[in-house]
Amino acid sequence: MRAGIVGLGLIGGSFAKAYSVAGHTVCAFDTDKTVLSFAMLSNAVQEELTDDNLKDCDIILICVYPEAALRFMEEKGPLFGEKPVVIDCCGTKRNIVDKGRELAKKYGFTYVGGHPMAGTQFSGFKYAKEDLYFGAPMVLIPEKNDDIVFLDKLTQLLSPAGFARFTVTTPETHDRVIAFTSQLAHVVSNAYVKSPSAKIHSGLSAGSYRDLTRVAWLNPEMWTQLFLDNDDYLIEEIDILMDHLREYREALKDRDRERLIKLLDDGRRIKEEVDL
Amino acid sequence: MRAGIVGLGLIGGSFAKAYSVAGHTVCAFDTDKTVLSFAMLSNAVQEELTDDNLKDCDIILICVYPEAALRFMEEKGPLFGEKPVVIDCCGTKRNIVDKGRELAKKYGFTYVGGHPMAGTQFSGFKYAKEDLYFGAPMVLIPEKNDDIVFLDKLTQLLSPAGFARFTVTTPETHDRVIAFTSQLAHVVSNAYVKSPSAKIHSGLSAGSYRDLTRVAWLNPEMWTQLFLDNDDYLIEEIDILMDHLREYREALKDRDRERLIKLLDDGRRIKEEVDL
Repeated sequence: MRAGIVGLGLIGGSFAKAYSVAGHTVCAFDTDKTVLSFAMLSNAVQEELTDDNLKDCDIILICVYPEAALRFMEEKGPLFGEKPVVIDCCGTKRNIVDKGRELAKKYGFTYVGGHPMAGTQFSGFKYAKEDLYFGAPMVLIPEKNDDIVFLDKLTQLLSPAGFARFTVTTPETHDRVIAFTSQLAHVVSNAYVKSPSAKIHSGLSAGSYRDLTRVAWLNPEMWTQLFLDNDDYLIEEIDILMDHLREYREALKDRDRERLIKLLDDGRRIKEEVDL
Repeated sequence: MRAGIVGLGLIGGSFAKAYSVAGHTVCAFDTDKTVLSFAMLSNAVQEELTDDNLKDCDIILICVYPEAALRFMEEKGPLFGEKPVVIDCCGTKRNIVDKGRELAKKYGFTYVGGHPMAGTQFSGFKYAKEDLYFGAPMVLIPEKNDDIVFLDKLTQLLSPAGFARFTVTTPETHDRVIAFTSQLAHVVSNAYVKSPSAKIHSGLSAGSYRDLTRVAWLNPEMWTQLFLDNDDYLIEEIDILMDHLREYREALKDRDRERLIKLLDDGRRIKEEVDL
């Protein structure tokens, strides 16, 4: 197949590598010509994505910030035609899916909201890898979630990326859950390292510290945008976590052994129910 | 050499496996006879540790809860003699090192506080593994931290475990830093999964959620004891984290883009300074 990729950062670059390694033709666009040249030299991309070949793509993956993704769909919408399925890969969905659907109707192309649930704390094409999505879930937000034939076509088009599963949901559910699984994790991790103890932890830490703080090193501009596009749900999750933290703190302050055991056991049980 | 191990849980069991695999003789004691038998059958332990052979050990690693560790040193102290170096492996040190030193003086044995900085969220001999300590730091709290010859002997005695480095410190510094690197991580992880969103996260999460919540599944009794033995420092760390979380929350509430970027960038920079 022919895959169009817009934006060769970590996300778009990893799609490009996965599709080209699988033998497909990748056409890509990036505002940074150096990145595009490098991607073509390393054979992650075979052709430049242009106004002329957009309509020949089977799938177009838009992997840039939400504002730029919408601008791209507005500007190039008239050129997509009926063949490609256009998927944006932005990290929040309420802010983009409704507008994306409107543009798709206006210009007559096929649009689906998406979010590949994989990443690293690093960004940019140089960290992109062909197996980034291997084993990860891909979230899909189609207008109708019961069109089996279309969903089947979608999973075929995305199969070169190696996703383990596809999750079909709504913008609201996506944003609510992502505030918890991803955004809150980044806030907590980034806040965690601000204790003065972080400066003297060397030689006195193990896996739990490493895991808690892995994503503290992040791209501040990108995450600020993601947070602001989902501030209601994220504030709610921060409040829920702080309320719970306060319970442990109070039990500790009261040196209430039984209450502490109960609090820890409740968390242990939930973890077991939802993940183990 | 001959190593004595008291308590065949995750920590003691992993020492037993590492020392026996390295060809040393392991003598062990556990209140649960079934565990001891199993460890002997699987050749992680060669002999039972008894009142008679305590004095023949080169090293005695006490891997039980603090109260039991102190009771063991009180009861068996007169039998240790001058040969073995006795090391407790408890997770907090202010509550044990002073008393351990007193007992060592009273009965004339050699005692050092210790804390191997490795573990998993699982406990018990069945999760013990010979390479648990491989590449991890071992914290040592000797009475004098400038006795090079003695420290050299200690690292020799501990070499079969495969530690990557040894950190010599005081009970106070250990407990202060561990409240941050280990205890706070367990509180946060355990509190994190209590959001109602945890129940619907399946298919909408990736590595950051997995890492943040890995240690939520823990041993409630053990951690309650560790927390209560270090409540002052742990409460301080919880307060510091909550203060920082509140800053992100306020910036989000005000939709203050610049402040959010600054907050995230500060965290990113600290992470880079202390770990990368």
